Amino acid sequence: MSQPAHHLRTRDLGIRVGSLPTGRHNAITDVPGVLVGHTTVDDGRDLHTGVTAVVPSQLGPGRWTLPAAVYTGNGHGKLVGSTQVDELGVLESPIVLTATLSVFRAADALLTYLMHQRPDGVSFNPLVGETNDGHLSDIRRRPITEEHVLAAIAGATGGLPAEGCVGAGTGTTALGYKAGIGTASRVVQGFDSPVTVGALTQSNFGGVLTALGVPLPVEELIPEADSTESPGNSCMIVVATDAPLDARQLGRLARRAIFAMARVGASYSNGSGDYAIAFSTAEPDRPTISDAQITPVFAAVLDSVEEALLNSLFAATTTRGVGGRTSHAVPHEAAVGRLAAAGRLTPSA
Amino acid sequence: MSQPAHHLRTRDLGIRVGSLPTGRHNAITDVPGVLVGHTTVDDGRDLHTGVTAVVPSQLGPGRWTLPAAVYTGNGHGKLVGSTQVDELGVLESPIVLTATLSVFRAADALLTYLMHQRPDGVSFNPLVGETNDGHLSDIRRRPITEEHVLAAIAGATGGLPAEGCVGAGTGTTALGYKAGIGTASRVVQGFDSPVTVGALTQSNFGGVLTALGVPLPVEELIPEADSTESPGNSCMIVVATDAPLDARQLGRLARRAIFAMARVGASYSNGSGDYAIAFSTAEPDRPTISDAQITPVFAAVLDSVEEALLNSLFAATTTRGVGGRTSHAVPHEAAVGRLAAAGRLTPSA
Amino acid sequence: MSQPAHHLRTRDLGIRVGSLPTGRHNAITDVPGVLVGHTTVDDGRDLHTGVTAVVPSQLGPGRWTLPAAVYTGNGHGKLVGSTQVDELGVLESPIVLTATLSVFRAADALLTYLMHQRPDGVSFNPLVGETNDGHLSDIRRRPITEEHVLAAIAGATGGLPAEGCVGAGTGTTALGYKAGIGTASRVVQGFDSPVTVGALTQSNFGGVLTALGVPLPVEELIPEADSTESPGNSCMIVVATDAPLDARQLGRLARRAIFAMARVGASYSNGSGDYAIAFSTAEPDRPTISDAQITPVFAAVLDSVEEALLNSLFAATTTRGVGGRTSHAVPHEAAVGRLAAAGRLTPSA
Amino acid sequence: MSQPAHHLRTRDLGIRVGSLPTGRHNAITDVPGVLVGHTTVDDGRDLHTGVTAVVPSQLGPGRWTLPAAVYTGNGHGKLVGSTQVDELGVLESPIVLTATLSVFRAADALLTYLMHQRPDGVSFNPLVGETNDGHLSDIRRRPITEEHVLAAIAGATGGLPAEGCVGAGTGTTALGYKAGIGTASRVVQGFDSPVTVGALTQSNFGGVLTALGVPLPVEELIPEADSTESPGNSCMIVVATDAPLDARQLGRLARRAIFAMARVGASYSNGSGDYAIAFSTAEPDRPTISDAQITPVFAAVLDSVEEALLNSLFAATTTRGVGGRTSHAVPHEAAVGRLAAAGRLTPSA
Repeated sequence: MSQPAHHLRTRDLGIRVGSLPTGRHNAITDVPGVLVGHTTVDDGRDLHTGVTAVVPSQLGPGRWTLPAAVYTGNGHGKLVGSTQVDELGVLESPIVLTATLSVFRAADALLTYLMHQRPDGVSFNPLVGETNDGHLSDIRRRPITEEHVLAAIAGATGGLPAEGCVGAGTGTTALGYKAGIGTASRVVQGFDSPVTVGALTQSNFGGVLTALGVPLPVEELIPEADSTESPGNSCMIVVATDAPLDARQLGRLARRAIFAMARVGASYSNGSGDYAIAFSTAEPDRPTISDAQITPVFAAVLDSVEEALLNSLFAATTTRGVGGRTSHAVPHEAAVGRLAAAGRLTPSA
Repeated sequence: MSQPAHHLRTRDLGIRVGSLPTGRHNAITDVPGVLVGHTTVDDGRDLHTGVTAVVPSQLGPGRWTLPAAVYTGNGHGKLVGSTQVDELGVLESPIVLTATLSVFRAADALLTYLMHQRPDGVSFNPLVGETNDGHLSDIRRRPITEEHVLAAIAGATGGLPAEGCVGAGTGTTALGYKAGIGTASRVVQGFDSPVTVGALTQSNFGGVLTALGVPLPVEELIPEADSTESPGNSCMIVVATDAPLDARQLGRLARRAIFAMARVGASYSNGSGDYAIAFSTAEPDRPTISDAQITPVFAAVLDSVEEALLNSLFAATTTRGVGGRTSHAVPHEAAVGRLAAAGRLTPSA
Repeated sequence: MSQPAHHLRTRDLGIRVGSLPTGRHNAITDVPGVLVGHTTVDDGRDLHTGVTAVVPSQLGPGRWTLPAAVYTGNGHGKLVGSTQVDELGVLESPIVLTATLSVFRAADALLTYLMHQRPDGVSFNPLVGETNDGHLSDIRRRPITEEHVLAAIAGATGGLPAEGCVGAGTGTTALGYKAGIGTASRVVQGFDSPVTVGALTQSNFGGVLTALGVPLPVEELIPEADSTESPGNSCMIVVATDAPLDARQLGRLARRAIFAMARVGASYSNGSGDYAIAFSTAEPDRPTISDAQITPVFAAVLDSVEEALLNSLFAATTTRGVGGRTSHAVPHEAAVGRLAAAGRLTPSA
Repeated sequence: MSQPAHHLRTRDLGIRVGSLPTGRHNAITDVPGVLVGHTTVDDGRDLHTGVTAVVPSQLGPGRWTLPAAVYTGNGHGKLVGSTQVDELGVLESPIVLTATLSVFRAADALLTYLMHQRPDGVSFNPLVGETNDGHLSDIRRRPITEEHVLAAIAGATGGLPAEGCVGAGTGTTALGYKAGIGTASRVVQGFDSPVTVGALTQSNFGGVLTALGVPLPVEELIPEADSTESPGNSCMIVVATDAPLDARQLGRLARRAIFAMARVGASYSNGSGDYAIAFSTAEPDRPTISDAQITPVFAAVLDSVEEALLNSLFAATTTRGVGGRTSHAVPHEAAVGRLAAAGRLTPSA
């Protein structure tokens, strides 16, 4: 479950998305105070699942909500907590991601966490997303427990999070390959102070993998791959920023997070529940950025989500799961070769 | 928890809402195939809660979905399953109602039910609503178990359901009084065959009780009543019909269900998560009613929801709950007196 | 078209909606800086139509937008400008109301006004609502000209606006009676400074007139009335406030404006395009009211819209229009008699 | 304004989007009964604007509505008619596209057309979209007249429509280049009978032109180009299909039309009002395609919109407009060279 402090990432292969600079770790955790934790549940045979938590440490005594929005690109999913975010425009819990049939147990566990934080509270709105990892994991077992969720939250840290087959991404597949969790960030100048946008994705959707415009179809790169698409796909995207934005504006960011899926070849199929959540950690008394100035922040969302999606695939490893099904990792060498041939590679500095 | 086969209802008091005829039981169960079940969890001291299930028996092998829509009047609530209903326009589970902090355990229990029904299924969209009964019940205990949910579904029957302090209405309060579950129905002529609209409400919201336009403020009718309003109010409304309507049209019905709350004096306050769910049991091959003909069906929704809300209050009984708080039943005699004085009473036939 | 400085209003008859105090004029113009202007187009025979403009004088050099939201209760209408208000959360023009088939000419005229205000501008979002006055007016003539619109804006003033058969309400009918324009306001204490909420309605919808809960059916009060309902009904509601609220919160106000229609007996029929627009004139640097404190503002919306709707009916006068159709004014004496009998009248101070 | 019967199109250059077959003309007119007409208003100096009409000939006596939906990707625009399409799920007029400040005159003209068609009608919902061609055209003149709109409708025909600088695309720019109108279509097998999906776009938005994943930045291909971005961008997309789909499903198609903009390099900037309209011409008594089968139709939308967008650019010609600003056509040779170098070209059959 743990990975080297700096595992190989898309950018290390010379794949550069856009021209905006990344944050220090090129991760959602570059947004100050945003932590990520994973609990991986993997028995090496039939269970390949887990929990990923995005924890804004700003939430706590003194500040119980952050401005937030949800956008539903394709509502074929079970995102818990969305209507209250729509109504009140706030996030009041860590964001937890897990497997479809475990989503309510995870929500109940997150409730335990929130009730512990606020012993007098009688109403909480846990926000829990899911994608269906049933292609590789025995999803009907509902293996996620309260302990798994609390451990992911408690273990959340800054720095570069583990990517690929970890946490809620342990058993997911995307664009024909083994996928998982990915993250990236961008820094935007031009405001009072630089603004950071970070994205984290749980990738589990169909289409043809496309990196920097170059198609990398699994049937060409791994002719022996099992081409059966996994059922009940989805993509959960979390966008964090320290830019002062209100809920309406964060909704605009969330929409662009879903739009960015097209850049990596998403097919936006019927069964793919595609959701984006965006929140701002800015101090509440800061005036919001005006819409007239917001376009560079949109660009940062598009680029960081695109790169997070690529990272979620390139960091994953070949996994054999339930029913003997195998999902193959993107073959780095072949992919890089195609990108080089198309003139799309940037030599590492 | 059980009530006499025909308990006293608003209509028996001479309170007649609108001019449309009711169905046989004046209940949501007048829509053929729609069943209602309750599990009441009441220890006589600190727990006054439960589960209510609306079970369309049309769902089962041969037909796994019904057209449906959700409308969010005020999204300060935790309705589980709404985004998928929005996207696909279908209901694929019984509708379960319970207490706020138990909603995820109830959703997980409903998942158990659905997984048992479809042993090969790997994705389900349980629809579970909640209101906050924490004014009278020790909500933080999360007392609802899988057994409670499965029992409410298994025990669902036709005929007149129990109303008032039962199931998910055991601990709720509304408009200053003890409230609970209520139901009503209307029959609309003028189509190929008569159409039935039924409503069931879990009433738990603020305002000044108003029956047929006559205000019945608790501070006047029960001067000794504790006027502290309960926290975290909400109202869940379920509308069923056998009229052939598609999801878009059912969304129009759901909106009017929320509009009907105004008729009984709802204040639509910030903390009240007010949601309506509407579904149609019509055979899928029947052509839908055109919008040009739909207004009488809207009237049936407005009237049946208004009467269901009144029934949910008039059937409830005074309840003393956690923290020594008491919620008083509507005093029938005083209420009827005021209605008579205002000339609003219809003598029972 | 002009009325006495203080024409007879619902409240003068002893009809008191709610317990909140009104503003000075009990009109939308009690919100500082909000002006109202009418152009009435009435040839005494076939044309009974016009334009009503709500002009926030805050809009101008130095401030080109105000926070705003639109809510669509029933989208069977042609509200011009709604999607941009949804996206950006701002109003950037006076709000103009007129007749259905004249709505685009009115929007083009409003464009002329805006282009004159900003000679360099190349994009504007005029907000223009409409209801169908074709029951009494020869709507297919599209009689509204640019001059009519510019005159309504130029003539907008503070103080008590004319109500009833004036401006965009000249030819409208509602709840079986002749209706028109109505307005009302409420003042809410409990914030840093008192907050004013004002409403203005263009009433043109079906149902049974209900005042303070007392039904006043036209077939009982005016047995000789033509009961044919007018085609293409609708209701436009404008809510203004000086409370510091953002667009999301104003959307919550707008929803409650539509909910208030139920209080006067609206049937929310298929053909009635019912829309509410809410905007705030507060200085942009004031911190917004928190949602936890917003419920009294909701109450002010519900009450002021209810009273504005009643005013729009009680101020109207019997009108004979195109095709020989007549729409009767509410008979004050009979109405007051019924309210008195029901004990709902408050003696004027 | 007219073009050769078969002008040069993207596909002729070897640029093949996706693997689905096109319809006969690779145009929205491949959907049986769907016609396209243009009126171009171009004085060679300051006016470069016009009207484009998409006319479903199914609309007429016997059938006054078609199922339809609108999706707002970015609501910074003035789409006339959207709320009624949302509510009733139907299109009841030809779809007219024009320039921003002429949109209300065009809507009023379309009203004239509709009133002529239905002499008894008193309510119509014209659907009129716009993008801002003010970069090249003197938009404040509002040069579009009723005659222009009626001519575009009356002149609508089947077969391959003119593309590029024609009709509503005469003055538009996109992705740094001169753009205009484009169209494309796809045929999907696997249903009772083959299904056609056609798209038409009015392209006027920012970003970096990307063809088949290959970036073609204007600053590289045309170093001397004026890099000032045009103000008030937008993109209008019309999707037609003969697949039997209801309004909810057409909304899913419309969303994917907006998603497809990412494929050609759209930046989805703040000022770009991006809207998609989808309608179905299928006979009303045909059962709708189930959502479980809909994914190939989504693919056809994504591919046909992508190709229509490319066509709208590659068919346009360099235009010098108001204020001396010039917008350059995509240099075909340079573009094809880059695509060839990246191995993305398919030799013409």
